[in-house]
Amino acid sequence: MTALPIDTPAVLVDLDIAEKNIRDFQLYCDQHNLRLRPHIKTHKLPALAEYQLGQGAIGITCQKVSEAEAMVEGGEMKDILITYNVIGAEKIARLRALSTRVNLSVVADSARVILGLSAGFADAEHPLPVLIECNTGADRCGVSTPEQAADLAQMVEASPGLQFAGLMTYPPAGGAEKVSQWLSAAIEKIEDRGLKVGIISSGGSPDMWQAHLMPVATEYRIGTYVYNDRSLVERGTCDVSDCALTVLATVVSVPSANRAIIDAGSKVLTSDLLGLEGYGHVVGHDNIVIDQLSEEHGRLVSKQSIDLEVGQQVRIIPNHACVVSNMLDHVILMRGDVIDHKEQVAARGQVW
Amino acid sequence: MTALPIDTPAVLVDLDIAEKNIRDFQLYCDQHNLRLRPHIKTHKLPALAEYQLGQGAIGITCQKVSEAEAMVEGGEMKDILITYNVIGAEKIARLRALSTRVNLSVVADSARVILGLSAGFADAEHPLPVLIECNTGADRCGVSTPEQAADLAQMVEASPGLQFAGLMTYPPAGGAEKVSQWLSAAIEKIEDRGLKVGIISSGGSPDMWQAHLMPVATEYRIGTYVYNDRSLVERGTCDVSDCALTVLATVVSVPSANRAIIDAGSKVLTSDLLGLEGYGHVVGHDNIVIDQLSEEHGRLVSKQSIDLEVGQQVRIIPNHACVVSNMLDHVILMRGDVIDHKEQVAARGQVW
Repeated sequence: MTALPIDTPAVLVDLDIAEKNIRDFQLYCDQHNLRLRPHIKTHKLPALAEYQLGQGAIGITCQKVSEAEAMVEGGEMKDILITYNVIGAEKIARLRALSTRVNLSVVADSARVILGLSAGFADAEHPLPVLIECNTGADRCGVSTPEQAADLAQMVEASPGLQFAGLMTYPPAGGAEKVSQWLSAAIEKIEDRGLKVGIISSGGSPDMWQAHLMPVATEYRIGTYVYNDRSLVERGTCDVSDCALTVLATVVSVPSANRAIIDAGSKVLTSDLLGLEGYGHVVGHDNIVIDQLSEEHGRLVSKQSIDLEVGQQVRIIPNHACVVSNMLDHVILMRGDVIDHKEQVAARGQVW
Repeated sequence: MTALPIDTPAVLVDLDIAEKNIRDFQLYCDQHNLRLRPHIKTHKLPALAEYQLGQGAIGITCQKVSEAEAMVEGGEMKDILITYNVIGAEKIARLRALSTRVNLSVVADSARVILGLSAGFADAEHPLPVLIECNTGADRCGVSTPEQAADLAQMVEASPGLQFAGLMTYPPAGGAEKVSQWLSAAIEKIEDRGLKVGIISSGGSPDMWQAHLMPVATEYRIGTYVYNDRSLVERGTCDVSDCALTVLATVVSVPSANRAIIDAGSKVLTSDLLGLEGYGHVVGHDNIVIDQLSEEHGRLVSKQSIDLEVGQQVRIIPNHACVVSNMLDHVILMRGDVIDHKEQVAARGQVW
């Protein structure tokens, strides 16, 4: 690898690859009549959100009010779904402000969340669309049964300032059939009560190429696919050549024949393992394992000779791209090995 | 816990506790005639570095050039040791600029690093003090043998613009005796070559109260002690009441009797486990385990009833304070339950 004129450690994003990833999955969604609503948590960059919309995405997904604010401030956004229970008067006031600038919708999975949203939007000009979050097996947020989903749908519809808009789930990987049954049962119960289920929103990167196996869903949310990462390579979702985000690091020490130390530690690669061995893939060095991270040191070991020199640059595909792009104030946008420009990660570092 | 008027998730630092931690360990060092050189990687706040110096620290330790720059910009610093192999013309030019503003020293563990430093400082007004980093068992950076340490000490002393200043090690936990033998052997070899070993710098939080068991060391570097964390509580180094940094989170969902979800995930608590079970200690809820983190969700589970309500705030002592204080742009400085002020984390998010 030729050394890049970039101080390390740095987070590099190859725009050619990212844009191809966006186009490829948009094409898949178009072919399967699925509405694509990419999650911007992965890149947190308004420019990439605009590219996603330009290719045909129907809107974006955010996980935090501050992410939505950063997207609206930094780009042309028309439609944002925040897939999170928004709680507290301060955040709901910010939601209300956002709702005057963009088509905004949110989710809820309890009466407490619905009451808070209604209090904030009761006197709003337009009702806030609310989707009921359903636990279809991932055991994170979401109501536990289709019956509860119907109860909350009815409550939303009856709440001042709110409008029932549909169902949202973050499904367990590989669970298409079970998830479809769950959602179909909920739709039936909700329709029995005279309500229409407009949107059925599912998502997740690991199963992205099987999204069409869950025809009950009307839209698909996905984040990691824009950059991809080692976890998706290991699952077979993408190839190494599809990985747009890498960490550029410099070898700062080669203390023994089988060990080298780089200037990228847990404060850039993060400690996310996602079930993998080691903290990333050193591109072009399949024999090397990143077996240990300190805050600013990464330890590279090999059963063979480590074959690295002090001062040499290496590029690392991290285990989990979404958390790495959140670690530094800036990313370096590249086209191949040519530096395009340095860009601030607009939506990182905010409290909420 | 009474709800605090703070939007969540937020990183809170109790200044009363942090200042007591600083005073307590300074007293210990004074009693044992150890020079204390706290590592600012934990807090990255010039104001806390100034407090540490005000209590008697002889200088500070930084891990990155950008950390040192942020400390010099934001506070009154007189003496900084960067315990890292600084490599590359750009970083060394920044080192050179820093060296005109503060007493600066660095480390090296290879000829390549020494050559780079010498090239940058050959025509400097004052020589740059360089310590040789020694691998005394932690197997990260550092020369492997006392003989190599002596060779590099001689090389430094012979290099234009550089001055041999001593030895530095990041010792393995619990290794005082072995480390002492290693360092004593190196000192003997270096003195045999007619050089004086001015500084012997050791450190580490887990063994902080045993620092006096390694009398060969002249100074001690330590970072985590200012905040403490769950990893140090579990090792018996401190008590829960000594933990100054907590993450304030809000319960956003209680989907079942034994599970609750909070708005603090891996983008604030981080995935650092440090050998522990779960991703932090929920203060006042010993029965709860944080068993899973998504980026913005933390999952709390309990074998008993979870006993939390949607909207309720919880405080979490993270496994590893040093990485958590690096996640958000600001921390909230508190005195007990009273908000003192919000402060920017000066040295976070920079490339290097």
